[in-house]
Amino acid sequence: MAEITLSQARTVVDAAAHRSQRIGTLMNIAVVDTGGNLKSFVREDGAWLGSIDISIKKARTARFFDMDSGEIGKLSQPGGPLYNIEVTNGGLVSFPGGIPLRDSDGTVIGAVGVSGSTVENDHDVAHAGASALS
Amino acid sequence: MAEITLSQARTVVDAAAHRSQRIGTLMNIAVVDTGGNLKSFVREDGAWLGSIDISIKKARTARFFDMDSGEIGKLSQPGGPLYNIEVTNGGLVSFPGGIPLRDSDGTVIGAVGVSGSTVENDHDVAHAGASALS
Amino acid sequence: MAEITLSQARTVVDAAAHRSQRIGTLMNIAVVDTGGNLKSFVREDGAWLGSIDISIKKARTARFFDMDSGEIGKLSQPGGPLYNIEVTNGGLVSFPGGIPLRDSDGTVIGAVGVSGSTVENDHDVAHAGASALS
Amino acid sequence: MAEITLSQARTVVDAAAHRSQRIGTLMNIAVVDTGGNLKSFVREDGAWLGSIDISIKKARTARFFDMDSGEIGKLSQPGGPLYNIEVTNGGLVSFPGGIPLRDSDGTVIGAVGVSGSTVENDHDVAHAGASALS
Repeated sequence: MAEITLSQARTVVDAAAHRSQRIGTLMNIAVVDTGGNLKSFVREDGAWLGSIDISIKKARTARFFDMDSGEIGKLSQPGGPLYNIEVTNGGLVSFPGGIPLRDSDGTVIGAVGVSGSTVENDHDVAHAGASALS
Repeated sequence: MAEITLSQARTVVDAAAHRSQRIGTLMNIAVVDTGGNLKSFVREDGAWLGSIDISIKKARTARFFDMDSGEIGKLSQPGGPLYNIEVTNGGLVSFPGGIPLRDSDGTVIGAVGVSGSTVENDHDVAHAGASALS
Repeated sequence: MAEITLSQARTVVDAAAHRSQRIGTLMNIAVVDTGGNLKSFVREDGAWLGSIDISIKKARTARFFDMDSGEIGKLSQPGGPLYNIEVTNGGLVSFPGGIPLRDSDGTVIGAVGVSGSTVENDHDVAHAGASALS
Repeated sequence: MAEITLSQARTVVDAAAHRSQRIGTLMNIAVVDTGGNLKSFVREDGAWLGSIDISIKKARTARFFDMDSGEIGKLSQPGGPLYNIEVTNGGLVSFPGGIPLRDSDGTVIGAVGVSGSTVENDHDVAHAGASALS
């Protein structure tokens, strides 16, 4: 099993933080490894306190199912096949901002989660982080 | 960063309690500091027991995102961008009654949460508390 | 069943806070009702953040067994009859600072918990609060 | 009240990581702010998974009582005045490795927690991190 290194995690966090600053947001940025366990985290000055937990949960959600966190939300709505899946696993986050991290071979090595702005901006910043590895 | 004092917290609680009595409600009133940690709390005689936790969580929610708790609820409905955000952070409350507290400079120094009646009354009483600082 | 009123709870908190200031400590002071549910709480400016939870748990512990929290600690040591009882009830505190509150008839109407200094000072301040009702 | 910046948190983490590498350990390093909320975290490659939570709890414990986490452990032993305090606050860690962070004025602005080796090494690495701010 490939495993994300701290060097790779820093590359992701730095790329995400760079994007956050460029678009003028204040973000919490979390990286988890293949086991879903926290590898790296930063909270930008002034970023929402409530987004600490959300960024970590977004990253975990993305790794738990190897898909963007927002994909879960399409299936977890009332009447949907995964209704209220958010209450499992100690709390999942099913809106955008969590993205699996893949190495240059396409193997999932972890995930990044971003929270602190609109979900569009959160996803944008997470995507910048994830793209830095490929 | 400014931090709420106990004197300020008491001003908020007293103003909220005064409003609660004037409109004939029985409220739980909680104040948290900038870190989201409890600073002051009172439960009026006969107020709902279930509102102890709700008032504290409303205050925490308001500080966690520096906005009224009810604003979160507009975004967390089925199909909305923050669907089921309530399961994060050990439990958020996304209906009205939580309001950030700002000092005379407009700096957020904590938040107040009120629970015990309709959400309209809860918000009304929280607003009376928050207004006492400005 | 007699039940503590907010007026009584304020008497307890004010007496405890007065004592705290007189002996030069920074305290968290919590009052719970007969159901063990939070009735009133204040954190003095600069008091330890970790004592929020401890003061509330001391008050709950005192009411749960209608005895001073420190009495539990005499029984919960290794080899004792209540070994590790602290892990029950979502967390008990078995050192001094929690005292049942009795009305003038001697009926238990709640409990006070104090945390922020040595356990001797915590108990001293809690005692000042409890004594204000009798 | 002063609040730790991300720049300061990075200084602490980098100094701690540098020390960790010099003494040949694999550490989890966490920094919390004055409210006890996570500000920055890194897990060195190969560091224990069980130390993620411990490093964060050490940092929180140090900030919660504005003292080294190991000081709590001297008081929480069987027969000691704070026996089993570890079950409060969602879990405290009372062995060495958590140290308050002070700015150049001596004001507490957060705390660092380190876990991954012996408690002596954990404290050594945390101390290197904390010293980088003064």
